Formats: sequence, C-alpha cells, structure tokens
Amino acid sequence: MSIIFRNDFDVNLVRSMADDLYVCQTARVSTQGADSYASGESKGLINFLMENRHGSPFEHEIFTWMISAPIFVWREFMRHRIASYNEESGRYKQLEPVFYVPGPERPLVQIGKPGAYEFVPGTSYQYVNLAEALKLSSRAAYNLYLGELDNGIAKEVARMALPVNIYSTAYVTMNARALMNFLSLRTKSEDSTFKSFPQYEINQVANAMELDFQRLMPLTHEAFVKHGRMQP
Amino acid sequence: MSIIFRNDFDVNLVRSMADDLYVCQTARVSTQGADSYASGESKGLINFLMENRHGSPFEHEIFTWMISAPIFVWREFMRHRIASYNEESGRYKQLEPVFYVPGPERPLVQIGKPGAYEFVPGTSYQYVNLAEALKLSSRAAYNLYLGELDNGIAKEVARMALPVNIYSTAYVTMNARALMNFLSLRTKSEDSTFKSFPQYEINQVANAMELDFQRLMPLTHEAFVKHGRMQP
Amino acid sequence: MSIIFRNDFDVNLVRSMADDLYVCQTARVSTQGADSYASGESKGLINFLMENRHGSPFEHEIFTWMISAPIFVWREFMRHRIASYNEESGRYKQLEPVFYVPGPERPLVQIGKPGAYEFVPGTSYQYVNLAEALKLSSRAAYNLYLGELDNGIAKEVARMALPVNIYSTAYVTMNARALMNFLSLRTKSEDSTFKSFPQYEINQVANAMELDFQRLMPLTHEAFVKHGRMQP
Amino acid sequence: MSIIFRNDFDVNLVRSMADDLYVCQTARVSTQGADSYASGESKGLINFLMENRHGSPFEHEIFTWMISAPIFVWREFMRHRIASYNEESGRYKQLEPVFYVPGPERPLVQIGKPGAYEFVPGTSYQYVNLAEALKLSSRAAYNLYLGELDNGIAKEVARMALPVNIYSTAYVTMNARALMNFLSLRTKSEDSTFKSFPQYEINQVANAMELDFQRLMPLTHEAFVKHGRMQP
Repeated sequence: MSIIFRNDFDVNLVRSMADDLYVCQTARVSTQGADSYASGESKGLINFLMENRHGSPFEHEIFTWMISAPIFVWREFMRHRIASYNEESGRYKQLEPVFYVPGPERPLVQIGKPGAYEFVPGTSYQYVNLAEALKLSSRAAYNLYLGELDNGIAKEVARMALPVNIYSTAYVTMNARALMNFLSLRTKSEDSTFKSFPQYEINQVANAMELDFQRLMPLTHEAFVKHGRMQP
Repeated sequence: MSIIFRNDFDVNLVRSMADDLYVCQTARVSTQGADSYASGESKGLINFLMENRHGSPFEHEIFTWMISAPIFVWREFMRHRIASYNEESGRYKQLEPVFYVPGPERPLVQIGKPGAYEFVPGTSYQYVNLAEALKLSSRAAYNLYLGELDNGIAKEVARMALPVNIYSTAYVTMNARALMNFLSLRTKSEDSTFKSFPQYEINQVANAMELDFQRLMPLTHEAFVKHGRMQP
Repeated sequence: MSIIFRNDFDVNLVRSMADDLYVCQTARVSTQGADSYASGESKGLINFLMENRHGSPFEHEIFTWMISAPIFVWREFMRHRIASYNEESGRYKQLEPVFYVPGPERPLVQIGKPGAYEFVPGTSYQYVNLAEALKLSSRAAYNLYLGELDNGIAKEVARMALPVNIYSTAYVTMNARALMNFLSLRTKSEDSTFKSFPQYEINQVANAMELDFQRLMPLTHEAFVKHGRMQP
Repeated sequence: MSIIFRNDFDVNLVRSMADDLYVCQTARVSTQGADSYASGESKGLINFLMENRHGSPFEHEIFTWMISAPIFVWREFMRHRIASYNEESGRYKQLEPVFYVPGPERPLVQIGKPGAYEFVPGTSYQYVNLAEALKLSSRAAYNLYLGELDNGIAKEVARMALPVNIYSTAYVTMNARALMNFLSLRTKSEDSTFKSFPQYEINQVANAMELDFQRLMPLTHEAFVKHGRMQP
C-alpha cells in the first residue's frame, strides 16, 4: 500500500434540500399562515431577514457533504454542534495511508499574539524542512501502525500512533443557518463585521462548502455577504 | 368572517430529503470511508443500527411539514427542541376564526392517576354539553378579539383573549432520528417497549407524520416498529 | 376559588452556578491547559471574549429560574431551544384561576408595519374596555372549565377553552450564552447593535432575568451591554 | 522538557449544581405548579421518572469537569453534542510532552466483527512491543514538533506531526440527562439493557465521571442502574 501525501481536501455535496424559495415561504408563515406555501422568492425579504437577524427561516434548507480532511481539521469542525456527523472509524476500519503535508502556498510563520495572529510565508528552507519532516514522520507512524496490526494488535490500539495529519472521511449535514455560523467562524474575509482567524486548512474546506451554498442559495449568500457574514 | 369548527388537522409534507439508502450510506462510512457513497440499501444494516441504538445515521434524512393544529397541540409539539419551527404569528397577523372542537369519537373521561391515565368515551350528554360550550366560548372570544381590533388595540394584545383551541399553522423540519423520538413519545401503541400516554390530538398529528415516514423510509419505519418504537 | 387578575410576573432565581471567574478559567484552558483552573477573574479577558465573539466560555455558567407568566409569554419563551424546561401541566393538574390583564402603563396601540412596529399608549377608553373585556372573558372561560370538570370531562379536554392569558409556572435552566441570546432578542434597548422588538410582557420577564444575570456576573453583563447586547 | 508516558486520566469535578432534590422539584411542577419548590426528595418519584423515560427533570442538574485525556478519547467525547466544551488549543499553546501508552491490563486484541467486538489480553510480547513502539514514535514526533517550533514554524502547523495519543485538557459541562446518555454509550456493563462497546480508554474516563454522578445524585444513579442504564 503506497503512502499518499496531499494538500487538498475533498468536499462533495452529496444531497441537498436548499433553495432561497424555502426561506421565503417559511418566513412568510408568520404573516400569511398556510398561504405562505404558494408564495414566491423575494430578494428583499431575504435581505430583511438577514439584516434583522431573523434566523429561523434559514434552518429549513439542508446540505449533506461528504468531506475528506485531516483529523486536525475534523477536531475543529466537530466543535460545531448544530450538525449531524458520521465519520470513518479508526476502531472498525484500517485507516488509509493518506496524509496532509502543507503546500508551498501555505503560510507557515505566525506573528502577533493569541487571538490576533497574522500568518506570513515561511522561507524555502522552512518549507522544505517541514514538508520532509512531516513525510518522514507520517511514513514512520503508518509503518508502526501496520506493524502492530500485523502483530495482532487491535485497530483501535494501533491507531494511537497515528498523527493528526492523517485524512478521515465523514458525512456532514447542516442547515443553512448553522452553515452561516460555520462560515462566519471558519473563513477569513475582509467583508466580515467580526473578524475571524480560522486555521488555513479548515478555511479551505469552508471555502468549498461556501461555493455550494452560493450556487444553491444565491440570494441568501448575497445577503450573508452584504450583512457582514454574520449568522442571522 | 364566518367561524369554523374542526376536529381534524392539516399535516402536509412539503419537502423531504429522506430515503433508507441515505441511512445505509452514512452508516457505512465508519467501515468503508468514501466508498460508502457507492453502497446500496440494506434491510439488515438498518435493523442492526436500530437494534443497537446507533442513531446518528438517522440524522441525515430530513422532513419538512406544514401543519395546522390548535395551540394546545403546538404547546406540546414545540417542547421537541431538535427541530426547526416557523409559525404563524399572533403579533403580526390577524388570526383566523378556526377552532378545535373534539369529534364524538374523542374519549373525554380520564380514569386512573397522573402518569398512567386511561381515557374512556364520555356520555352523549357530556359530549354535547362540551361541544356546545366550546363553540359558544370560542365564538365569544373571537368576537371579543375582533371588537378590540376594531377599537384599535394591537393584535398582540387583543389575542390574549383567544383560547388554546384556536388553530395555528407552522412549518416543522425534523430529521428521522428526532422524528422517531417524537413518534415514540407522541403516539400510543401496543408495540412500544416504553408506553407513552400522549394527548389524543397530538397523537393524531403524529399518526399523519408517521405515514409520510413509513412511505419514504419503509425499512427504517419497519425496523422502528420491530424494535419497540424507541428512538435509536 | 376566587379569580385573580395580575399584570406582573414571578421570576425567581432558584439555583445558579454562575460567576465571571468561571468564564475566565474556561477561556484560559486554550492557552494554559490545566493551569487555567488556578487563574483569576479578568475584566479585560471577558471584554476580549465578548468583542471577538468567543462564545463557548459563557456556556459553563448556569441559571435556573422558576417563572410564572401567561401562556402567550411561554409560547415565545419556549422557542428558545438551548434551555431546559419543566412546566405545569394542564393534563395533570387543575389550572389556577390566575389571568393576565395589562396594566395601564402597557402600550396598547401599534403603529408602523410588521418587523418594525412601534407601540403607543391607548386612550383611557381603550384601556378600560380592554381590561373589562379580558376580565369577563377570562372569568367566563374559567367557569366553563370548572363546569366541564364537574361534568367529568378530563382536564386535558376541559382546558381547551382557556385563553392564552392564563398563567403557568415553569422551571427554566439556561447557560449564560443562551441567556445573552435570549436577552438580545427579548429586550428592547437603545444599546443594541441589532434592534429587537419583543412583546412587552416577555420583555418584562427578560428584564427580571437580566437583573439576576447582572448581579451574579457583573463583568460579563457589563461587557454584554458595552458590545451591543449581542450573544457572543 | 522531559517526556511523560501515562496510562491514566485526570477527571476532576470542578463545579456542580446537582442534587436528587432538584429532579423531584422540577418534576413536580407539572402537578403542583409553584408549590413544587417546597417539595422534598423522593426515591419513588425518581424511579418513576426513569422507568417511564420522563427525561426533562434530569436536565437541570449540572456538572463541570476538567479532564485530561488523549486526543483519540476527545475525538469520541466531542461527538456528544449536548454538552459545553473548552479545550486546550494546539494553535495558541505549545503542547506538553505527555503521551498515552496503554498499561499492561489493557486488552490489546480484538476478536469478533464490527459492532460486536470482544477484547482479550495480548501476549507479553505484544504488549512490550507496542509500548516500546508507542514511546519511540511519541518521542520522535514530539522532537520533530519542537524542532519545527525552533525553526520558526507556527504552532498550528508544527502540531500536525503529533499523534492522537498526546494528552489534551478540557472543561466539559453536562447536565444529568446528557450525562446518562454519555454513560450509557461510553461504559460497558452487564446491567445495560442495550449493550455498548466503548473503547477501553473513554470507558475509564466515563467510570470516573460516574463516581461523581453517583456521589452527588445517589438516587438518580441507583434508578439509572436499576432501569438498564438507559438515558431517560
């Protein structure tokens, strides 16, 4: 089994039930009752809801992604509790030898202090040294893992040696309101009223999710950006 | 505006993203990783998940209903927090004169003690007296409501006089796991491992929801019934 | 049993585990690990968390209130899902004849349009007419309720005639983060970055809860107000 | 900085608001309204609630622990969404060189199939080989981590090399109902109506939490065990 080093992420929208129209229909039930179901899409209404932080109409639009990302990304991802997760199990499955090694564009050096870090590129030396070290240690850890499995050690025990840059795959289901909360915290943008400082890698995953959001719910996405990328 | 008395409920599934297949795919990610997405439906797997209370694969299947029911039903319904709601507003909308009056088949007399009530039919006298009284009082309350609105009183104030048997309409979005929890508590069934004693009216609403669940996710529904109607 | 008309609310903090210190200790675990538990209170840290919307350290401080309020208030209250509720049951308990009738200071007339209503006082005629009508209809509904109970009708059926201004009592447990969300939506304040238009009555309840919050967590409350009364 | 290898966990209850009495008071509000607050503790009531799965009165009793455990334990722990977490950050803090290496009593070999694994002890050879390999690889990974930090690489990047057996510390706040759900899934017991197969390490953590639960809420704990260790 040959080891794979990657610096990208799989973010595949596998199912959805998401449309700007649903936001408008559910919002209008407050003033129109059952007649709301016959109503149409309205950019103005969506903007009104976003601006005034009426969030509940954004909960009825649902996205399911299948995502492959390193464990250190999942550790941050699963702190978002308004979502449903099913993930590959290191207890029940032999994990694949796929590891994250940053690409050369990844800023490596942090300056500033906790809560307001800025990141700047590393030198070539820093990058090469890091990339080689990560590859070596990933390979060593995976070989240890295989060796222990060969020795008859249970998967859940042998995996203790694996580093947090190993990839794992999970299904994630989120509604549009929870998604906007996720995006507000896990993307960095000049448009944000409240600045977030997400780690580079989860930001890449969030960017891919945002493209699906924008494609399926263009008016909601536009209103989200216009109103400072805050969860309504 | 002529007053309407009803004893039924509107339960319309307006959108869904629900299929037994989704349960199987998301469950299999634990042992198959990304390959799970190419896998098929399996009655045996669904039964295994239900029997062993592996609940998370049942969270990725979503139902949105538009439901009209009396306020006393909504009061019970909205105690279920793993769901999304948007409801007609008595602050922003003049409420329609639609009121619940039990039908003759509704058991009216409770025997036993709190926590284990049984219900038995009332006499004709009891039924007629109750139905007439409810009609009179609903009409009186609604006339008071209209009169105060005519006097210029705000909707949110005038509605204070309205009884809990007035109908209200809401959108409800739930995943299949939360739905099974709802059904386990809000339906009464001999098949239940744990007996529930729901109020008759919310039980009727839950029965209608269960039909949609059974139709869209027949294997999951069958496993739910087989394993004592407990939420996995 | 003599009927009671009230225009106030019981908001009693019965238990709490809430202190500015807990916010600081839990926040510092990110940079200090286990040493965080020995650390002290810091106004600057609390302000930093609030300003940058780091909300999770505000989830470990807990409040339990016992609250008596009319059903129309509870209907709004229980839309807040990040909370725990236990309420008096109209199925298991004969409800007390306690009804809400607005006091003379309650603005009765709404002007403007949905989403941006303003309220102004009513005339004396409007007030007296409303108050008398509510008293009459509450009394009539309660007498009907008692009469049906006397006829042997089950409590859960007889209560269908009762109006939404009848009082009910519940325990509510919330953490400080959920509480700030509640306060941001259910109080009206010039200090709010995002204006809310809560109904007068739930605003009164929220004001009483806010006093307890301010007393037990003065630095957090101060930071909440300073940063626009938004939930972090 | 000298490396530490451990096979135990720190589970310290740092705050609580938990008592069997609270369960009884909140439960009785349904039949006694505000009078419930003057009522006392009742073993019979707690058993009734547990047996009939009336879960909400168990949500008002709160526990906060500070726990140190390996990342692979936290990965399982944080799947429990009805809880509040604040954890040590690998982005903001240099992680300590503390790693989990199983003790000799830890069963190392799994037999059976996914969903129904049994674990049996390993041989001395298996144990010694595993323990030595884990120590070597943990040390190598931590040295790599320190080396990259010395090279000026950001903490959040350098930590990618660290294995999931490194310890991390977090505060966890849970109510008694969520705790019983956690215990039902993360402990293995002959008393369980539904068998769970938790990983050994999280089971140890759960056992320590259960002792605090039993000490502070003895009647609730007794009822939990008596009724098959299911979450009500």
